[in-house]
Amino acid sequence: MLTQVALDLTSLPKAIEIAEASVEAGIHVLEVGTPLIKAEGSRAIERLAEEFPERPIVADTKTMDVGALEAELSIKHGANLGCVLGAAPEETIRSFVTRAHELCAGALVDTIGVNPVDVLSKLKGLEEFPDYLLLHAAIDEPITGEELLHKFGVDRCPARTAVAGGLTPRKIEELDGVDLVIVGGYITSSEDPVKAAEAVVEAAGVEPYDFRPDEDQREALLGIRKHSTVGIVVKDSERVSEVLNAAIRLVEWVRNEPSLRTVGDDDSDLVPKFEGDGRDLTLILGAEEFDREDLESIAKESVKTILVAEEHVLKLYGVAEAVYEI
Amino acid sequence: MLTQVALDLTSLPKAIEIAEASVEAGIHVLEVGTPLIKAEGSRAIERLAEEFPERPIVADTKTMDVGALEAELSIKHGANLGCVLGAAPEETIRSFVTRAHELCAGALVDTIGVNPVDVLSKLKGLEEFPDYLLLHAAIDEPITGEELLHKFGVDRCPARTAVAGGLTPRKIEELDGVDLVIVGGYITSSEDPVKAAEAVVEAAGVEPYDFRPDEDQREALLGIRKHSTVGIVVKDSERVSEVLNAAIRLVEWVRNEPSLRTVGDDDSDLVPKFEGDGRDLTLILGAEEFDREDLESIAKESVKTILVAEEHVLKLYGVAEAVYEI
Repeated sequence: MLTQVALDLTSLPKAIEIAEASVEAGIHVLEVGTPLIKAEGSRAIERLAEEFPERPIVADTKTMDVGALEAELSIKHGANLGCVLGAAPEETIRSFVTRAHELCAGALVDTIGVNPVDVLSKLKGLEEFPDYLLLHAAIDEPITGEELLHKFGVDRCPARTAVAGGLTPRKIEELDGVDLVIVGGYITSSEDPVKAAEAVVEAAGVEPYDFRPDEDQREALLGIRKHSTVGIVVKDSERVSEVLNAAIRLVEWVRNEPSLRTVGDDDSDLVPKFEGDGRDLTLILGAEEFDREDLESIAKESVKTILVAEEHVLKLYGVAEAVYEI
Repeated sequence: MLTQVALDLTSLPKAIEIAEASVEAGIHVLEVGTPLIKAEGSRAIERLAEEFPERPIVADTKTMDVGALEAELSIKHGANLGCVLGAAPEETIRSFVTRAHELCAGALVDTIGVNPVDVLSKLKGLEEFPDYLLLHAAIDEPITGEELLHKFGVDRCPARTAVAGGLTPRKIEELDGVDLVIVGGYITSSEDPVKAAEAVVEAAGVEPYDFRPDEDQREALLGIRKHSTVGIVVKDSERVSEVLNAAIRLVEWVRNEPSLRTVGDDDSDLVPKFEGDGRDLTLILGAEEFDREDLESIAKESVKTILVAEEHVLKLYGVAEAVYEI
């Protein structure tokens, strides 16, 4: 179970302050709340992604129309997961999910205001399924994620399940089979947001996400967010490993079926090995062993490619849009 | 039938350009579209209201949650009409409408994605009814506003009716019994937006709204938007009359049952006479004839009060938050 803080505020500085506290407590995912987007525009997404490039950023646009446009607006400004309403027309949901996936981001369908069963039957017609189904419920009695789904008559949900709505640590402890818990007011209105966020992570029974990048790592992560092909030259393998794992999480945590691939150097212990088709993300380890043409042709198959070279390799500069030494 | 242009763009300068063209063509109402709000934040509402203070500004926030907060966010930044989704929970719609009315603005309920009949039954429980019901429909065959409602099984709608969705002049000509037509792409994607907007106004069979304030009038209208009590000292009665009528339209065009009141000088022909209880707007004509205490006590009963004095009256300065000489 991952934890997410919903920054449902109208002031950007205040939102960053709460995000900082949440990150300190090990919260995994940061949500730019709907009121914050409507107050500050997409620069709020941009700022959060700049401040916390290692954490998945969710943009809660609550999209109801022009799906592809709003997915793109969110993702191009730094969101890793976009939010479309279950109440939206099927075509809006379809174009939102498709565009999000094309851009290597995830899509969450929010059932607020409508019956999740109706939403699921609407989703049946889609070629690409959203990554998360968000259940908004007044959870006043102990209930498992499964029960929550059953309550709405959903037997099986082909997406990950997220839950939101007045969640507190006590309520979170009772949840089971939920992939993502979203907490707003309990943290944002707390007098001690760090302590509140710590209680949320603890109640979720999950390891706090305690990685905070140093300046070089931060620059590299911003580059990975911005460009489709990035080169990393390894000076300190542990620090590179942290960056690569953070980059992997930006995909893994938001996509229901992420397609990751590791290519090259089998002996490298920089990252775990992935054997997908790399549609979303390909990591080329030991990039110095590849021809430039090979690098280019592998990169072409992924939305995002990270070339990792153990030593300074000039050819990276022709293939990658940016190269970082860490 | 009034006409409204939906500025569904993501660039503010482009939106202002299209607004300028629409205003030149006599379009009555300007809508800050959802993508524009999400891209630029509420400063987009602010800018449009600053540029065109004489025209009602609609903020299409498509609110789905935190109704009072989003109504306030829109209206405090200059919106005269806020938009909440029919798919939103009843409590969200209730708090949105109530807050909008408290702030002397209107509320539109958008039926996009859901059946208007379901929306209307949801609205039945409200103490205050929204001002507009917006029907989104693919209007491919000639249809009257009444037929459009009947199509959804609505016999009687206690709000004004707005229609949106792929409207063109040809389709608008076939409409009947509709209070507000909302046109987006036909104007915003046109190579000649002025001509396109003119065709919309003509098809709606309505007088174009051709009032454009001069600099003094603009300042006064901005003051009326910003403050709850404003004084106007008459130098040129025709120009004052234009300002007062524009201020009245900011209420009349967005509220289903506006409560306006004219107090004082019966001989004044600056504005038509209104005999409501002035809950929304009170115009005190010949304010020089009133005691300061009376002015204050009358002003207290309205959300907005305009004191009009034929000559420079010092006591206005104690009562009004700002005084303009026109």
